[in-house]
Amino acid sequence: MITSTQNPRIKHLLLLQQKSAQRRADGLFVVEGRREVEHCLEAGFNLRTAFICEEISPPPPLPADVELVPVGHNVYERIAYRGGTEGIVAVVEARHLGLRDLQLSASPLIVVLESVEKPGNLGAVLRSADAAGADAVVVCDPLTDLYNPNLIRSAVGAIFTVPCVACSTEECIAFFKEKGIRILTAQLQDSLLYYDTSMTGPTAIVMGTEATGLTEQWRLAADAHIRIPMLGRLDSLNVSVSAAILLFEAVRQRQEESGKSRN
Amino acid sequence: MITSTQNPRIKHLLLLQQKSAQRRADGLFVVEGRREVEHCLEAGFNLRTAFICEEISPPPPLPADVELVPVGHNVYERIAYRGGTEGIVAVVEARHLGLRDLQLSASPLIVVLESVEKPGNLGAVLRSADAAGADAVVVCDPLTDLYNPNLIRSAVGAIFTVPCVACSTEECIAFFKEKGIRILTAQLQDSLLYYDTSMTGPTAIVMGTEATGLTEQWRLAADAHIRIPMLGRLDSLNVSVSAAILLFEAVRQRQEESGKSRN
Repeated sequence: MITSTQNPRIKHLLLLQQKSAQRRADGLFVVEGRREVEHCLEAGFNLRTAFICEEISPPPPLPADVELVPVGHNVYERIAYRGGTEGIVAVVEARHLGLRDLQLSASPLIVVLESVEKPGNLGAVLRSADAAGADAVVVCDPLTDLYNPNLIRSAVGAIFTVPCVACSTEECIAFFKEKGIRILTAQLQDSLLYYDTSMTGPTAIVMGTEATGLTEQWRLAADAHIRIPMLGRLDSLNVSVSAAILLFEAVRQRQEESGKSRN
Repeated sequence: MITSTQNPRIKHLLLLQQKSAQRRADGLFVVEGRREVEHCLEAGFNLRTAFICEEISPPPPLPADVELVPVGHNVYERIAYRGGTEGIVAVVEARHLGLRDLQLSASPLIVVLESVEKPGNLGAVLRSADAAGADAVVVCDPLTDLYNPNLIRSAVGAIFTVPCVACSTEECIAFFKEKGIRILTAQLQDSLLYYDTSMTGPTAIVMGTEATGLTEQWRLAADAHIRIPMLGRLDSLNVSVSAAILLFEAVRQRQEESGKSRN
């Protein structure tokens, strides 16, 4: 059992949590919590090591090839973000999905985020995308890696349930054009109200950053520009809230259409 | 100029930030940042004192009766949450709105939260309510006061732009029944899909906590139960995201209806 926070394996774990360069170099990332580990296994990720604090909780069922490393309570307190409630922190092999790896439905619904700044926002968008049954989330020219701990935490498991691709804007636009996926960009200028825009066909909803909006490249590639009406005085919504409003309008329209086609 | 963090006025300010009991006893709360102070003044709140760090920024225009207290940079760092970017922290007189103080539109749209646990969630709901042009947010049997600093921060000004009432569940149900406001409770059991439910008339959308859902009292008082379909694997949305989805469906339906009535 590891009882020192100065143990080299604990130091390496902390580096994986804190440094994206370390995650990239090793092709590894860190997952905390029983439910998150469960979603991670269900999604077919390879767990390499599980740091377990038996004092808090016995380990959940894990594949036989996962190395179990018991740690003392003091060490667990150091490596766990949420404090001592779950008893498991796992090191997992990263997977890098490309656009061509996506298994899209007949009428895909995709969210694209352009260079989102805050990992927590991307996590929250993934959570909304899971709820709306979206096919994928694509992050173009990301400023953060997809295995940032804040992202994994705020996604509450959705990083494992929703396919998430990082790629360049050029690559993404070319892919959508090739596949006949309509590009709807969320922007104020020259835009339609989002509920006056059809989202029943293959649809990508593209959102920029809260600070600077979308780049010219996306605006020019768009099949339609859409906006959420701002009826209050503040003129801003969190990006994950905006994504949810747009995604669930697609859900509503698709449901309505399938109702009609049944009649 | 105050240059010591041990100054009694600074100590009192910190107590107002940290302790709801202090806020209640004094009938005061704390607002940080230029934009927030602006929204606060526009909403007619009385600023009592403005702690200003001239080194960061000269004070914004303020009413003549606001006491200006210059503070040193070290003091400002201590009293400001966001660090030294804005240069103003103000002490403001609390206002307690009751249901009867609300000035409702012809077809009001109201969000009710039952004993929301996290102040940050309530702040995010206020932000969504502002965007959707909701008439009010009502918090029943609140576990937090409405002037918690985390709430004010996450509301990014919406605590001043959206009327917010705290009252008991009994009082709130009686008020809605008297005013003919339809009660739609967000719950899974015996529920309709939210977009199959009319929200064009006077509507209150009632949401429970993420952990325990709604109390029996609200379920029994409901005119309809509504749910957001969960099409993913995680089965959960943040309460502010759910509120936004439901509110903007009301916006859509009302827009559609007013379009019809114009034709």
